[in-house]
Amino acid sequence: MATDADTDAETGTVDAYDELTDRLERLTAVQGASGVLSWDQQVTMPEGGTPARSKQLSVLSSVSHEMLTDDRTAELLDACEGSDLTGQEEAVVRETRREYERAAAVPGELVEEISSTSSEALGAWEEARENDDFETFAPYLEDLVELKREYAEQIDPDRDPYAVLFEDYEPCLPLSQAEEILDTLKETLVPMIDEIRESDADVTTDAFEGTFDADEQEALSRDVLTDLGYDWEHGRLDVSSHPFTSGNQFDCRVTTRFDESDPLGALMSTVHEFGHAFYNLGLPREQFGTPLGESRDLSVHESQSRLWENQVGRSAAFWEHVLPTVREQFPDVDASAEEAYESANQVYEDNLIRVEADELTYHLHIVIRFEIERALIAGDLDVADVPEAWNDKYEEYLGLRPDTDSEGCLQDIHWSHGNFGYFPTYSLGSVLATQLYDAADDDIDDLEGDVRNGEFGALHDWLRENVHRHGARYETNELVERATGEPFGADHFVEYVREKYGDLYDLDESV
Amino acid sequence: MATDADTDAETGTVDAYDELTDRLERLTAVQGASGVLSWDQQVTMPEGGTPARSKQLSVLSSVSHEMLTDDRTAELLDACEGSDLTGQEEAVVRETRREYERAAAVPGELVEEISSTSSEALGAWEEARENDDFETFAPYLEDLVELKREYAEQIDPDRDPYAVLFEDYEPCLPLSQAEEILDTLKETLVPMIDEIRESDADVTTDAFEGTFDADEQEALSRDVLTDLGYDWEHGRLDVSSHPFTSGNQFDCRVTTRFDESDPLGALMSTVHEFGHAFYNLGLPREQFGTPLGESRDLSVHESQSRLWENQVGRSAAFWEHVLPTVREQFPDVDASAEEAYESANQVYEDNLIRVEADELTYHLHIVIRFEIERALIAGDLDVADVPEAWNDKYEEYLGLRPDTDSEGCLQDIHWSHGNFGYFPTYSLGSVLATQLYDAADDDIDDLEGDVRNGEFGALHDWLRENVHRHGARYETNELVERATGEPFGADHFVEYVREKYGDLYDLDESV
Repeated sequence: MATDADTDAETGTVDAYDELTDRLERLTAVQGASGVLSWDQQVTMPEGGTPARSKQLSVLSSVSHEMLTDDRTAELLDACEGSDLTGQEEAVVRETRREYERAAAVPGELVEEISSTSSEALGAWEEARENDDFETFAPYLEDLVELKREYAEQIDPDRDPYAVLFEDYEPCLPLSQAEEILDTLKETLVPMIDEIRESDADVTTDAFEGTFDADEQEALSRDVLTDLGYDWEHGRLDVSSHPFTSGNQFDCRVTTRFDESDPLGALMSTVHEFGHAFYNLGLPREQFGTPLGESRDLSVHESQSRLWENQVGRSAAFWEHVLPTVREQFPDVDASAEEAYESANQVYEDNLIRVEADELTYHLHIVIRFEIERALIAGDLDVADVPEAWNDKYEEYLGLRPDTDSEGCLQDIHWSHGNFGYFPTYSLGSVLATQLYDAADDDIDDLEGDVRNGEFGALHDWLRENVHRHGARYETNELVERATGEPFGADHFVEYVREKYGDLYDLDESV
Repeated sequence: MATDADTDAETGTVDAYDELTDRLERLTAVQGASGVLSWDQQVTMPEGGTPARSKQLSVLSSVSHEMLTDDRTAELLDACEGSDLTGQEEAVVRETRREYERAAAVPGELVEEISSTSSEALGAWEEARENDDFETFAPYLEDLVELKREYAEQIDPDRDPYAVLFEDYEPCLPLSQAEEILDTLKETLVPMIDEIRESDADVTTDAFEGTFDADEQEALSRDVLTDLGYDWEHGRLDVSSHPFTSGNQFDCRVTTRFDESDPLGALMSTVHEFGHAFYNLGLPREQFGTPLGESRDLSVHESQSRLWENQVGRSAAFWEHVLPTVREQFPDVDASAEEAYESANQVYEDNLIRVEADELTYHLHIVIRFEIERALIAGDLDVADVPEAWNDKYEEYLGLRPDTDSEGCLQDIHWSHGNFGYFPTYSLGSVLATQLYDAADDDIDDLEGDVRNGEFGALHDWLRENVHRHGARYETNELVERATGEPFGADHFVEYVREKYGDLYDLDESV
């Protein structure tokens, strides 16, 4: 991976910085290529293509790992750190240093072992879930817990290994802060959901009953994406088995899936993915290839999807706006905007599945996973005891006990990838979404009116200005404080759910 | 690009050979990734994605160039060449040596200059063709001719530079042999086309008149692909502005395009691309990543597409078979199989465009390009004189003189890419197709009957056995001799066109 530049980084900071950004641009290009290959694998690749694709992805991953961990990267970082840099340049060096240190700390063999164990674990997990047989998956989960502990130890043997793992997904937000937010969610939501279950409020739940043709749902998703401001010159919508967003500021694509009995599922997931894509498409184009042109990490990314899904897409104002669009495809929908709004916000009584959860119970699903994976990594819980721990917590926090592990601890794919520390970012993103939206609401003259009128320009501008254009220039807390004037915390979320669900379910204000 | 293997290639041939194939597998993976990115760019990428995609493609290209030309490749080749190898291993080393030498001979700056000049030339060519203004394109063509001469000189200063350039597309077939075949085509076809123009034979030309809906044409293309034996588990059909095939033995995709006034265009192009894809899908899967799992070069590849397009797809037997399938989508087609066959084989009186040419005039389009590009590279023709030379040759060989350069020397994209030496492979492939098909016909009990019955299994097997399974194990001439028992030459083609077009146009047997 030699370049043509001067190989003596000492000769000048400007040279070193330029060579570093060249290297980063190459690295981004290789990672971007992997992204396209993954998108293709999930959306367009014929099934039989797997062997070649697996090889291509694993080689690209090792090429980018070599580019990042090459000694030359360290030399360039050293040269840059000892010199005068602008604030933007400092941010590039800071982000690269962090990524370099992590990547260089972990031996290649361990990375490969995690990767090959995950591949096998994925198959075992699929089989286990299919057959409702946790035993099939357990040995792989044990291996992954062990391997990920070792991985964390390679990075920093002196810290809580779970905190180290968490940084793979959220590198610049202290775990203690995340934990405090999750604790607040639990304390707020467990009693609130209890009270909702006892509420006599007459909340409409059946505004969307019947059969909803997939092609018409797709047309609706396209209409809504256009309406929200999705830039089709730089994006596309496809179908995949799990909705996701993939791409950069030039080409960022969303996917969804259609269930003919549940049009809200695809609609809300499309709005969610729009938020992810709108973030990526708002990253500065002229900074493509360095951290200044890349998104902040997973909590911030999820805040963008959740803001559009929940603060916009599940608001009463949005339903007044969108219902006529829904009726263009589905003229038989005769619910009022208020009824549609209530249906889109109903709190489910007996849902055990995270991805089908409402805005409130969702976070208890996350808290349960967080508590279990923390205990697993800490060695306080054996893999064999996961199903019972899972079921006990569901009973304790949600008043529900899964009958099977398939609808219990086998429901999510994440642990089969060895992704311990990922789940919390889902809740953190939702919480941050409320804080950002309140700040936008303060700055924008009549945001609710805008949403009611389908005028999203001011909100677009606010997000571009306060979040997107910065790329990864600021660490999470600084980004949040600059955008909202406050530290990142759960207050806005608590206020939001109390007000919204207090109204919907006639709750006592003291809850 | 260090690997974990022993860095002293002297330690053992087995080690060196294994390390070499590891390296080749990585190289193939990176090149395959580029292929997926190109496919995506032409088929699915939103227009605005270009800047990121260009960067990704150029970085992958430099990564694969570095992998190939790394000193370690040379060390491993040296170690392998001095040792006992099996025939297959020898072929891997031979192919890699050739690629290595070419890639290592050309300085990176020259490769980049050619690449950036081509990018600009492409834009200039598009503009020139649009405005029928050769002057816009001329300076870029001059630069490309100059750069490609320099490129050839870097590879071998002692040989005809055109012969060196030709090897980029057809590395193991002497140019003299190619030239002999092209001369035979010219000598055979110029008088034959003359006689056809004077023939009174009543050949049907209008079996497919009217408007043919694009969606129904697509359904027909899918039906025909299925019918020919395309393996949808490992492939897909999409639309792109120029039809192409892309992929490997696990995932090989075809594209086509639809013209609502010309259903034959898409149908024949689909059959053509099927031939390319069927070749790639027949390469040995267990050899994926080395030359043994890669196709022989462009003439052989084109022989596979042309065999299906011309020998199968333009035969009377095939039209008896396929017409009912056509009628399923287009019940208004009331031509007989014989009339459809004649329409699909009519020799156009006034077509100036290569990609719309029939099976005979096609080769004169190629011969003209071959003669002009040879003269350009030799310095015997100035770029400024290309339009007149082009028009004169069209008049001499085809009796037609283009009115504009847009339908003359600006019609093809190839020169704007600097691809001098590519065109001949189109004719060579068509010629080889006839020789291979005759050999298959000798070996198969009733090939014509099989085609009439839509039974392609014996032909599949013959091509798999005699061509596909060998990958690049044999050089072109050896592959052809092994498959057909004869040296590669134009005799079968001459016999084929004399018989077929003699019948169609009642030609004198002496022609």
